[in-house]
Order: sequence, then C-alpha cells, then structure tokens
Amino acid sequence: MNPVSNERDRSQVRKRPVAVLGATGAVGQTFIRLLENHPWFELAEVAASERSAGRKYGEAVRWVSGGQVPESVASRTIVACDPGKVSSDIVFSALDSSVAGEAELAFAAAGKLVLSNAKNHRMAPDVPLVIAEVNPDHLRVLETQRRNRGWQDGGGIVTNGNCSAIVTALALAPIHERFGITDVFVSTMQAVSGAGYPGVASLDILGNVIPFINDEEDKLETELCKFLGSLGNGTGEIVSAPIAVSAHCNRVPVENGHTVCLSVRLRDRATAGEVEAAVHEWRGAGVARGLPSSPERPVEVIDAADRPQPRRDVQRGGGMTVVVGRIRADSLFDVKLVAMGDNVVRGAAGASVLNAELMVNCGLLPR
Amino acid sequence: MNPVSNERDRSQVRKRPVAVLGATGAVGQTFIRLLENHPWFELAEVAASERSAGRKYGEAVRWVSGGQVPESVASRTIVACDPGKVSSDIVFSALDSSVAGEAELAFAAAGKLVLSNAKNHRMAPDVPLVIAEVNPDHLRVLETQRRNRGWQDGGGIVTNGNCSAIVTALALAPIHERFGITDVFVSTMQAVSGAGYPGVASLDILGNVIPFINDEEDKLETELCKFLGSLGNGTGEIVSAPIAVSAHCNRVPVENGHTVCLSVRLRDRATAGEVEAAVHEWRGAGVARGLPSSPERPVEVIDAADRPQPRRDVQRGGGMTVVVGRIRADSLFDVKLVAMGDNVVRGAAGASVLNAELMVNCGLLPR
Amino acid sequence: MNPVSNERDRSQVRKRPVAVLGATGAVGQTFIRLLENHPWFELAEVAASERSAGRKYGEAVRWVSGGQVPESVASRTIVACDPGKVSSDIVFSALDSSVAGEAELAFAAAGKLVLSNAKNHRMAPDVPLVIAEVNPDHLRVLETQRRNRGWQDGGGIVTNGNCSAIVTALALAPIHERFGITDVFVSTMQAVSGAGYPGVASLDILGNVIPFINDEEDKLETELCKFLGSLGNGTGEIVSAPIAVSAHCNRVPVENGHTVCLSVRLRDRATAGEVEAAVHEWRGAGVARGLPSSPERPVEVIDAADRPQPRRDVQRGGGMTVVVGRIRADSLFDVKLVAMGDNVVRGAAGASVLNAELMVNCGLLPR
Amino acid sequence: MNPVSNERDRSQVRKRPVAVLGATGAVGQTFIRLLENHPWFELAEVAASERSAGRKYGEAVRWVSGGQVPESVASRTIVACDPGKVSSDIVFSALDSSVAGEAELAFAAAGKLVLSNAKNHRMAPDVPLVIAEVNPDHLRVLETQRRNRGWQDGGGIVTNGNCSAIVTALALAPIHERFGITDVFVSTMQAVSGAGYPGVASLDILGNVIPFINDEEDKLETELCKFLGSLGNGTGEIVSAPIAVSAHCNRVPVENGHTVCLSVRLRDRATAGEVEAAVHEWRGAGVARGLPSSPERPVEVIDAADRPQPRRDVQRGGGMTVVVGRIRADSLFDVKLVAMGDNVVRGAAGASVLNAELMVNCGLLPR
Repeated sequence: MNPVSNERDRSQVRKRPVAVLGATGAVGQTFIRLLENHPWFELAEVAASERSAGRKYGEAVRWVSGGQVPESVASRTIVACDPGKVSSDIVFSALDSSVAGEAELAFAAAGKLVLSNAKNHRMAPDVPLVIAEVNPDHLRVLETQRRNRGWQDGGGIVTNGNCSAIVTALALAPIHERFGITDVFVSTMQAVSGAGYPGVASLDILGNVIPFINDEEDKLETELCKFLGSLGNGTGEIVSAPIAVSAHCNRVPVENGHTVCLSVRLRDRATAGEVEAAVHEWRGAGVARGLPSSPERPVEVIDAADRPQPRRDVQRGGGMTVVVGRIRADSLFDVKLVAMGDNVVRGAAGASVLNAELMVNCGLLPR
Repeated sequence: MNPVSNERDRSQVRKRPVAVLGATGAVGQTFIRLLENHPWFELAEVAASERSAGRKYGEAVRWVSGGQVPESVASRTIVACDPGKVSSDIVFSALDSSVAGEAELAFAAAGKLVLSNAKNHRMAPDVPLVIAEVNPDHLRVLETQRRNRGWQDGGGIVTNGNCSAIVTALALAPIHERFGITDVFVSTMQAVSGAGYPGVASLDILGNVIPFINDEEDKLETELCKFLGSLGNGTGEIVSAPIAVSAHCNRVPVENGHTVCLSVRLRDRATAGEVEAAVHEWRGAGVARGLPSSPERPVEVIDAADRPQPRRDVQRGGGMTVVVGRIRADSLFDVKLVAMGDNVVRGAAGASVLNAELMVNCGLLPR
Repeated sequence: MNPVSNERDRSQVRKRPVAVLGATGAVGQTFIRLLENHPWFELAEVAASERSAGRKYGEAVRWVSGGQVPESVASRTIVACDPGKVSSDIVFSALDSSVAGEAELAFAAAGKLVLSNAKNHRMAPDVPLVIAEVNPDHLRVLETQRRNRGWQDGGGIVTNGNCSAIVTALALAPIHERFGITDVFVSTMQAVSGAGYPGVASLDILGNVIPFINDEEDKLETELCKFLGSLGNGTGEIVSAPIAVSAHCNRVPVENGHTVCLSVRLRDRATAGEVEAAVHEWRGAGVARGLPSSPERPVEVIDAADRPQPRRDVQRGGGMTVVVGRIRADSLFDVKLVAMGDNVVRGAAGASVLNAELMVNCGLLPR
Repeated sequence: MNPVSNERDRSQVRKRPVAVLGATGAVGQTFIRLLENHPWFELAEVAASERSAGRKYGEAVRWVSGGQVPESVASRTIVACDPGKVSSDIVFSALDSSVAGEAELAFAAAGKLVLSNAKNHRMAPDVPLVIAEVNPDHLRVLETQRRNRGWQDGGGIVTNGNCSAIVTALALAPIHERFGITDVFVSTMQAVSGAGYPGVASLDILGNVIPFINDEEDKLETELCKFLGSLGNGTGEIVSAPIAVSAHCNRVPVENGHTVCLSVRLRDRATAGEVEAAVHEWRGAGVARGLPSSPERPVEVIDAADRPQPRRDVQRGGGMTVVVGRIRADSLFDVKLVAMGDNVVRGAAGASVLNAELMVNCGLLPR
C-alpha cells in the first residue's frame, strides 16, 4: 500500500456519491448526520427494509439522533437494500446483523465497496477490521478477499468493529505499539445507545445496571486481538495478536459513551508514567491524519482524578477522540487505566466514515 | 470462642439498650430503621453532633431512608456524641470518619462496645473487621485490643468494613474456603447511597459514570484480604490473606446496590460448575445462622443470564443477601462472576447489627 | 345494593378460582404477584396469546415485576385467551387494548365476570368504571349491562380505569364529596411502568421528559368525570359528573408512581385548610373498608413541603394509598395540591383485585 | 430609547472589558463559557468569595459546565467581589442571592453597570427585568433607578429573571402581544442544573420527582407578569401585566432544560391554529435581532407530537431558543401548549449576556 500524499487539493474533488444501508435505524441516523455536510462524500441514496422502501425518509424514520432529520434527507425516497436498486459504488452498512450477512455479500459481489458496521464478517481472516489510526495496513487483505471470493476490483467488505472493542483498542494501541501487551482485564460500562433503538427498555435500565450484553464479551475479546494483530507472512490474511483478554460487559443508564476499566500486563516493563507518556505522544498512523473525520488526537489523556466521564467527555474531538485517564500502577499486572469513547460516532458510524476517508487517501477508493 | 447454643428462649431476653452515634446521617438513619422493632435491642439513645444535640430527632433529621421517620424515634431528644452523655453499653457508630477516630476510642475507653461502620480503626491488627458469616473468629482479637489499650472488659471496637469490600468478601468467601484464592480483579459499579447524604451531586451522576471514588480502591483491596485473613499464631492479631487484589471503583446512577465484576485465580484448580456449586452450598459460619438479621442465605446464586441487577435484586434477604450470577470460566484466571449487594444494609448498618447479634450469641455481649 | 356485613368468618371461605388474561405482560405480572397469596382468590389459570399458549409460564415470561417469578406460577402451563379454555368464573384482564375489546366480550358472553384493566369498554354507559372506595354503587349498572347485552347472570365487565385517572380521582373524591368540584387543571408526571414492557425505550426517556402520552389526556379527562359521576335517574346508566377538566400528560424517568399537580375550583368555597381536613378525614365508602387489599387509608395527607415523591412514597399502603401533599390556595381557582400513587398497583392490577373483593363483599360474586 | 443602527461595523469595535462576579459557581461557569470568544466583550476579571480570592481560577473551580475550563481563564487570579478590586465597568453577576443583594448595590453605586442573574432586585419597580426580545423598552427605568438611588450615569442594575419565568415568558410573549392573556396555569418540570452545584443531591432525584422548589412558584408568577408588563404612565416605573397566574413547580431528573405545560385564557378569542401562527411568526423586538447571542428564532414551533423534549431540543439556537409544541385547544381556557428552554443559557447567563449586547445596541453601554 502506497499511501498517497495528503497535499492534493481536496477542494477540487468532485464529491463521491454514497449510500447508507439500514438508514432508518439508530446507527443509520448517525451515518446520515455525519454525511450531511461531508466534504468528500455526498449522501446520494438511503436504503432500508422492504417495509420502508418507497416512503419518504422523513416519514419512515423515528429520529432519535439529536436535533431533527436533516431537511436534505427528509424528502428522499427510501430504496430497498438491493444492489440493483443502489447505484453508488460506496456503501455504508448500518444493517442489523440478522440481515447484514447476506446483504453485504450481495453488494460486494456486485462490485460495491461496503463499509460495514455489522458484526457478521468482522472476524473472517480476509476481511479487514480496521481502526484508521491503528491498523490501516490491514486494508491490504482486500486483495486476498477479492481473490478468495472472486469479486471484481471495486467490490469488497471493510468492517469497523464493535463499539466497546474500538474504544478499548484505541486506548491500548499506543501501549501495545511501545511496550507490547500480553494480558488485559477489561470491565465495561456501556451506554444504552449501543443497543440501537428501541434497544434497551427503560424499565430494565432506569436506576439499574445490567451485567450482561449478549455476545459482547466475546466480540470485545476477539476483535481487540484482531485490531492489534498483523498481516500474516505470505498468507495475505490477518493474524490476531496473541493477547489474553478477559472481558466483563455491563449496561449502565448512560445515553452515549462507553467507559472501560483496564488492567494491562506488558511484555516490556514500564512505569505508569512511561505508559502515560506513550499514550500522550501517540498520534496514530500518519496516513490517517488530517482526514475530514480525524480528530486532532485519536486518544487524549485527561488529568482530573475523576475523569473521563461519558456525559462530560463524550463529545471530545467531535465524538472521535477516546479519552483516557487514571493511568496508574496495577497490583496484579503492570498498569491500570480508564478509557471512554463515543460509541455511536467513534464506535460505529464515525469509524466507518473515517475508514472510507482513509481508503480514499490510500487510493483504494476512486478519487 | 465457644459459641453458645442458639436454642435458648429468646423471647425471655430483656432487650438490651443501644445507642446510635451519628444518628442523623444516611447510615445513622438505616441503623434507626433496622433497630426500630429489633427483638434483642432497644434503641434507647440517638447521638449526633453538637449542632443537633438538644433538638428533637424528627426535627433535626433530613430523612432520606425511605418512608418517614419512625414515630417512636421522631420525638427523642438528640444527645451529644460524648460517652458521658450516653448510658447504653452497646453503641453503633455511624459517625463520619472525620470525627469517628477519636470519638470511638473515647467510647471504648469508657467501657462501651462500639460497633463501627467508620473506616478509621478497621485496619488496626487488634481491631476485628468482621462479617458475621465469614470470619466470626476474628472477634477473639478483642482480648488483644483491650490488653493493648488498657480498656476494661466491656470496652472495645468491632468494625464491619467498607460496603464494596463486604459485598466482594461475601461473594468470594465460599470460593476461598473451598479452593483458595490467589488473585482477584474487581471492578465495581457503586450506588450513590454509598456516598451518604447529600453525597453525590445529581449534576455529577445523572446519565453519567464517575470512574473514581476517593480511597475506595485501597479500602477494597486491603479490607478484602483482612476479611479472608486469619488469626496469627500466638500473636493475637489478624493476619491478612495473601491475595493479590486489583480494584477499579466506579460510581453509577443507581440508588442502592453495589455491583462488582470479579475475575478470580484459584490455588486449587476448579471449573466454573464446581465454583458455582461451592457458592450455592455455602451457608457461612454456624454461629451466624438464625440470628434476627441473618438472611436465609448470606450468598445466593441466581440463574438468569442478566442478573444480579441492583434495582431488582437489592432487597433479597431484606438487603442482607449478596446475589451472585454469571459464574463462568475466565480466559485469564480461572473463573469470573458478578456479585451485587445492598450497600446500606449488608454493606453498612445491617452488617453492624448482625455483628452485635453475633456477639450476643457468642457470649461477648451481656445477655 | 345491600352491602353485606364484613363480619362473616372469612377463614371459612373456600378460595375462589380466578384466571389472569394477558398474564405475561407487565400488568399481568402484577396481577400474579398480588394474587400469589391472596386470602380469597386462588390463581387457577394463566392465559396469554396463542404464541405463548402451551408453554410453561416461567419460560414464556420476561419477568420485570421485581424479585423473581413466584415458584407456584412458574410451572403452570399457559392457556389461550379463549373462554372455552378457561374454567374460572372470575377473570382478571390485563390484555392489551388491541385484543381486549373482543376477548372481554367473549368471556362475558360466556358467563364470566371480567375485571378489566383495559381501556376498551370503560366509557360505555352500562359498564361500571369503579374505584372501590369512590363509587362502589356504580356496580349496579351491571344489571343494565346484562340486560342490554343479553348476558346470563354471572357474565359482565367491570373496569378500573386508567392509572393517572385513578390517582387523580382518589385525590379529588374527598374534595368533590364535600365541596363539589367544577373545574380541574391537571398536569401529570408519569412513570415508565405505566407504558408496560418493553414500553418506553431508554433512549427516549433517560435524562428526558416526553410531554405526550398517546390518548392519555382524553382518558384522564373523561374517566375522572365518570368516576365522580352518578347513576342516572331511572336510566340504569352512569352519568359523568359535569366537571371541566384540562389535562397535560407527561412521561418522566421514574420507575413507578404517577405524580399529578392539580388546581381545583370548588362549587362551595373552602379554604386550603378546610380542604386538607376533608381529605384527611376521608375513608371512602364503608363497603370498601377492611377488604384484603384495602389500605388503612385510601388517601393520605403528607406534611413535608417537598412530598409526595414517587420513589419515596409509592409503597405507602402496599401501593394502594394515594399520597397527597402541598394543599394550598390557588391564585386562579380555589386550591392546588399534588397527588401521587402507584400506577401498577393502585392504578392497575391492585384496583381490579380490590374491585373483585368489593364484589364479593357486596354479594355480586359468589362466596 | 432610540435603538442605534445594527449596521455599524462591529469588527472595528474594541472589545469592552467585563467582569464576572461569582465566577466559580455553576452560573458563573456558564458566563465564562459564553464570554470566552465573545466578539464584543472581553472577560477581563473573575471575582468570587474571599475564600477563593487570590487563587488561580483553574484551581479554585470545580468545573461542571461541560468540557474543561477554558485555558485562557484557568490561569487568571480570582479577585474579591469588591468594587474597589474590579476595574471593568460592565459586571455580570452570578452571585448567590445570600450575598448578591448588597454586593450588587455596591457595584452599581460605584458606577458600574450590573447585569444580574440574582433574584434580589428583580421585582423592584425601578429595576428593569428584561428579556431582550420581549421587553427591551423596560431598560428605560434605569433613569428612574439612578435618580431614585442617586447613582452616577454608568451605574445601575439590570436583571434577567428566574429560569422558568424566562422560558414561560418567551413562550407567552407572542400570544400576549397578539391576543392578550388574562389567565395562565403553568406546571413546570425543571432540570437539576437550575439548582446550581452541588445543588440537588442525587439521592433526592434519581428516578424521582420533587414537587417543590423553594420560592419558585412565587418567582414564576410575579416575574412573568413583570416581563409582560409596561412602563407606567409618567411614573418611570414598571407596572406588571394584570395576568392571573397559578404555578406548580417540580424538579425532575433532567440535566438541562426546563419544560413547562401551559393553559392560557385569552382576552381576544383565538383558535389553536391562530395562536400557533402567532408564535410561529414572532421574531421579538427588532432591537434584539442580529446580536451576537441572538438565536435565529427566540421561539420556535416544533411539529412532532411528542416534542419539545429537554434532552433533544435544549441546544436549539445555541441554548437561546425556546421550543414550543403541542399548541392545542384547552377545555378550560383557550389554548394549551408545552414550552422548553435551556435554563442555564437562555434562562440564566445567556440572558444576561444578550441583555448586555442589547444595551450596547441601544447606546446604553459605551461602545
């Protein structure tokens, strides 16, 4: 992969038309909000289930994403999630996992690049699971993917991971790059927006904690290792990092922002101060800097003893910055810390959009 | 210690007069609620700060403990927290730690038995830190305490531990007794009632998580080991169990009930099923059974995949039962699980009352 | 109606078998909780939709009603909501309004007495809409109902009203009886449990207010007048009280307990003190006293300036007492006040059970 | 008052130095946030209690206002709230009412213009109580005020009203201007941020409603009439509008945004549609348009049946727009509606800042 220069004049770029699949759901709404005034992409099509197809977006949607439906989208007619009905070559998928598996394959086979937020294909070794600043080189397995599956050049699936896995991986990437991580204990406190809409019933979560989220612990454990993994020698596939991870996942009565408590064992001994310096200095892969959705810092260290906090820190970097605090010595492993990130922006739709921008920057999407 | 028989006719027992120190605070209110119709103890005196002394309890208190001030207590006149003003020989201390240190020593020196909820003396090796069902034998160090400090027979301090430490210790005691625990990761989600009243500001916690509670991680780590510790050979003092503990403590928008996520390494290998059986079978020390405040089960295993939950399970056993769920294999250590208990009853006032009942049963308090 | 004596020996009464229709929903669960150890009724059958019929109750239900499914009910097999499948003559209906209309008619036509929590038949002039302490005499229209509809003696429908209407009517009944009410402005703050399960999505209500509940304002306005209405002369039907009511209904992030703010204009002038005395003295209809579900006081005045509060007062009288506070002069009408009551007990299932007890006491159900 | 042209070139204006009194409190923090990059004003001084004076702002403050302390302010040294220590001629007061009364008089007597958020002087007939778009002409009583009190030209006090009164007055101003209002029922659901910090204890409000806010009902009733009042003929003082108002004030577990339910009787009959049109068309006084803090619309009508909602609509117009919905016929009066506004921006600090901008625009503050 030869990342192209960032310097070309972007103002001259004709905006690329894109579609959002599953546009009426909670993640779909976030895609629409993030794409509304995007400098590189133009939201050309909104697709949803057969039930909604043919209706005006503004009438079909139960908007829960803050403010009101953008006017430019409200009057659009929803099309079905069918590659034959969608003309854009770049497709963001906010589909529910019950339908995403087959639908995304169909779009990819039809030559479209699918940037997916769904879990279905994430762990396939020929599907890149990418955080732009952490493992942009994993995009190279797209070649393997196309070869394996017999897809033409433009087609493919790029995934962006589970929301709690993304937050955790961003907090740990600077540490893993510098010192190597061998063991991680992670306990999450996850916002209700992570469950979509209607998602968690208020009777279940008001003044309560639910110490269980279906499949979440497994996703967090496996995806974290894939994010921090590497391109296998000669295989053209991703090899997950050999990190032992134990996750406890909990739902708490918070609207947005997943908080994770982490205890970490390092391969190369380091003090809490050295770890904090490594996190503070980290800027992520150069190829992911300066993109429209790139925050100034993908990970930011906050000083106050009682931070990060979801309600107060979730909007840092437009929801794209993971905030890390309380980096201190751990009595069992080496260091412990707290990380918090916006699960609907950095942990879902924003991650996909940033991945698309990264692919443009790398020449993997037509300019 | 020779526990006396439980069989004696308790209906004949004249109720012992008791006092509550710090009676107007949140924990003090819970003491009053629990002692209101107690079969063995009679709430004879309520003591509080000089500012409140002389006023009627019902007028001085800002009642936050559910329902309304019990009528029998509302009309009592508050006395100062001064051993000379309190005639009861059994004294429950709900004092704030800023004053508890000296005040409790003064009461003990005056020959009174202080059952304290304050942190000040908990970690002194000659002060018993007791959960009735877990380590009733630790009460023996009262002899050492009296000898060390030159106190007469009735005087002494017995403490009951931090709320999150009590919940954790109860969940782990059955496992430690059977398999031996060497390492524990614990991540808590603690209710606001644990911070007293007014305690946590609503602007800090509504829709939020605070990943920090002052001193709490240290208390949880050290007290847990003392609860699970033993009487040192010949020293007459307590030796903490050699367990490595790493705690992450968080405040969540829950009224009552601390939830803790635990990953545990065992000395003797065991499966999750064996651990669950051990927890299920455990009834705690025989001497602590059948007391007025003893729940049918001090620890109860719940089956549902998404339990325990604070709002739904906190009242189990009248707030004295710790509910444990999700016992499963851990990818780093041996097992992981979730425990939840009522921080104001089992984790504070109820623990002190049960300790007093235990001491009556053991002949350590006059019958 | 000649209410029978309360003095007969109830211990001799054989328990009457009853069924609950819609037993798996939130209201159905409350019925099951209230009927679990009922002294007069025995829960003999649980009925639900075709989808659940044939399954064990404990497996089909998503229990949200506090604690766990009562063991005695968990193993029961659910039957379909079909009069031919239900043998009990007394039937509590917790059916959703989408199916309650026809189903309840079918049960009544089959000779069963339906005590319904559904809205469908409430406003029919020959259907009694009853709060046991307020308008027990309205039960007389059952005769008209049977005559109108050609139902045999045992068949019929008795309804208990919308949750916010019940709370409001109980608070206003003592005032209306003594001074006459001509105008009422009412603004509600209603708990999420009033919407059933899953009901209100957490994303809609966490840290939020929803100033709209479908149909609720109309129900509150019309049902309040029917509760306070009278038997029309010679018509055998209910005539609503001529009270002008304006309602604002809001949903707030509270689990249980509807709070209503009321401004009231009186026919006969009275001071706030006189109104408070009237509320304080009121005990409701004699025929409704001393029943198994009767609270000591159906309406209770609370003194503290900042009460009633749902979280702190909802369990008064086992959830059957409406708590009233802040009775004061109103600058537009005569008095204003705040009332709060348990919407799932007094406002739903408990109201039905009390109505059934009332009917036994009045000789309208077989003893 | 001859409002000056809006057309002058503001970019040429040297920024006026301003001070914030009570800068460390919750409202003070909002002032700091709003003044951070203000085009006309420069935050030159931060003043607070003697206890904080001399300390760096960033160290003395417990920042609760979202994000973090602005860097430019963090390093400022706090001065005492003493006119001799403050050199700015424009002073924003976020002082607590316990000290605001005397302190504001002292600053005004020293020739400073005090824009106050405190309640102390609001209802004095020679003190303007102003919402920029509603009653800018009330500023004229400053002349009376100075004459009455013997203050020099620059000195004076301008107040901006209670948060719930401001939201209500903005919603009603368009209706009153067009149809005349004679009677108003108002029931509020107010956010915890309205009580400052630490303010409402979480144990009091989590999952709860408090149907009482000290003095709030009286403030809302009287201030609303003063906002909608007029300059008395020849007296040079404000005469409140003769509107009968009855208020019910409640606290709910919402962070920001007061919601008010209103029933309104009109002098000139109008349908709900006509009232809605009047609200929709209203833009407020011309002299208040186009100021740096002016929202595009001071009042905005929202269509959706279940809006406005505090969490979703509070940021409209940067927190300066009051959102109105559900305008419909009222069965007692003429119309009812729901209004919601940001209590910390429009209802407090933002209102003061807008008033200062208005005074610059009117030539009442030096340019």
